[in-house]
Amino acid sequence: MKKRNINAAILIIGNEILSGRTQDTNTSTIALWLNSIGVKVFEVRTIPDVEKTIIETVDFLRKENNYVFTTGGIGPTHDDITAESISKAFGLKYEIHKEAFKILENYYNPGEFNKGRQKMAWMPSNAKLILNPTSGAPGFIVENVFCLPGVPSILKSMLGGLKNKISGGKPILSHTISLSTVESEIAEPLKNVQNNNKEVEIGSYPFFKAGKLGVSIVIRSTDKSKIDNCNSQILEFVNKKKIEVISKN
Amino acid sequence: MKKRNINAAILIIGNEILSGRTQDTNTSTIALWLNSIGVKVFEVRTIPDVEKTIIETVDFLRKENNYVFTTGGIGPTHDDITAESISKAFGLKYEIHKEAFKILENYYNPGEFNKGRQKMAWMPSNAKLILNPTSGAPGFIVENVFCLPGVPSILKSMLGGLKNKISGGKPILSHTISLSTVESEIAEPLKNVQNNNKEVEIGSYPFFKAGKLGVSIVIRSTDKSKIDNCNSQILEFVNKKKIEVISKN
Repeated sequence: MKKRNINAAILIIGNEILSGRTQDTNTSTIALWLNSIGVKVFEVRTIPDVEKTIIETVDFLRKENNYVFTTGGIGPTHDDITAESISKAFGLKYEIHKEAFKILENYYNPGEFNKGRQKMAWMPSNAKLILNPTSGAPGFIVENVFCLPGVPSILKSMLGGLKNKISGGKPILSHTISLSTVESEIAEPLKNVQNNNKEVEIGSYPFFKAGKLGVSIVIRSTDKSKIDNCNSQILEFVNKKKIEVISKN
Repeated sequence: MKKRNINAAILIIGNEILSGRTQDTNTSTIALWLNSIGVKVFEVRTIPDVEKTIIETVDFLRKENNYVFTTGGIGPTHDDITAESISKAFGLKYEIHKEAFKILENYYNPGEFNKGRQKMAWMPSNAKLILNPTSGAPGFIVENVFCLPGVPSILKSMLGGLKNKISGGKPILSHTISLSTVESEIAEPLKNVQNNNKEVEIGSYPFFKAGKLGVSIVIRSTDKSKIDNCNSQILEFVNKKKIEVISKN
């Protein structure tokens, strides 16, 4: 376990992402939210709906990270095997979760809570629930593994309820300077700024917007004064080189 | 090495994806293209711009997969460390690639090929080039590892040139049936169809579009007749249950 930072891994479970049919947007949603509560995402893995792969990957990631967030595979169909796989990864019984069963029973109209829907109440024994304000079916937590659904709008609505269940560090702040230039023009002075500010993460990202070339420099740290320092040093060489600043935020 | 299928891993290198600032779209682009030439993506990993992590991950993935595609980190700035890390992963010298140097020298106007840009000619010794019709700077291939840039439009323009460098299997075909229903309504009969057609991959994906609930069933196989078989069996229960078919394609 890496101790200095509070870190997390995201595990995207689903053939539809690997086939390219669906573009994952949950990584960005979860990562931005985690940053805001001081948790840094160290890696993301996307794996197929294959039990053995899910078990092995969860088992590895949960030991390497403070938190693991899985998305996908907790619905009612045959390809939804996350809950059963997580049970096996932890050596727990896969059984009906009484509280989840009640929530679902109340959510649906009488007669609508059929066998398919009941599957969504099957979870690892003693899992803690993650409430779902959008579509009823809860996610669940086992130790440091948080299991969320794959549908982006539902996942988004469930994150807010997790804040108190996670001990983050200082929020990770970022500042972006967008310049009307190309990377090679600033590579050398930017490298010097990075070398003089080792504790700050500086990224350089070229973009093409409205037919215009540009570079966004992103400074990231938990310490605002370090970001400000870095920012001044960057603006110094930007001004000296008479590069147009498109935006700062 | 798994032998039965031709498989690939995608390795997204970049802090900007892990921070949530940028949403990855390259996975979907590469996966759809690979499917069309009969290569299946088995896993995707997103890792930070950290040399040790890149080396270890490349080393693992290249042994587990027929092909590895990396994206990101081959530009001119300090955070572009993919080429040097790949050199170390393979125990190769990191040096100026003469052909890449010439391509870049010709691409830029006289006097514009500065030190920052020259960095993009540094590659693992004897790497094969991947030509870049959009912005000059080539990607490269070492054994079964293909290194592409992170900028989606540039990456897209480079894939076409790779077709002859990859030995794929039969193209992976897919057929999608979109239904006006909810997953729990079809979970049971769909499971039966999957059990009767084990060699075909059947996925079920709920959607909310224009305020309407629906489910897309995706059938995937390299064998069109198996897809057709499966499709008939699904339409059979769909008709019996009087579920509206929104689209088939």
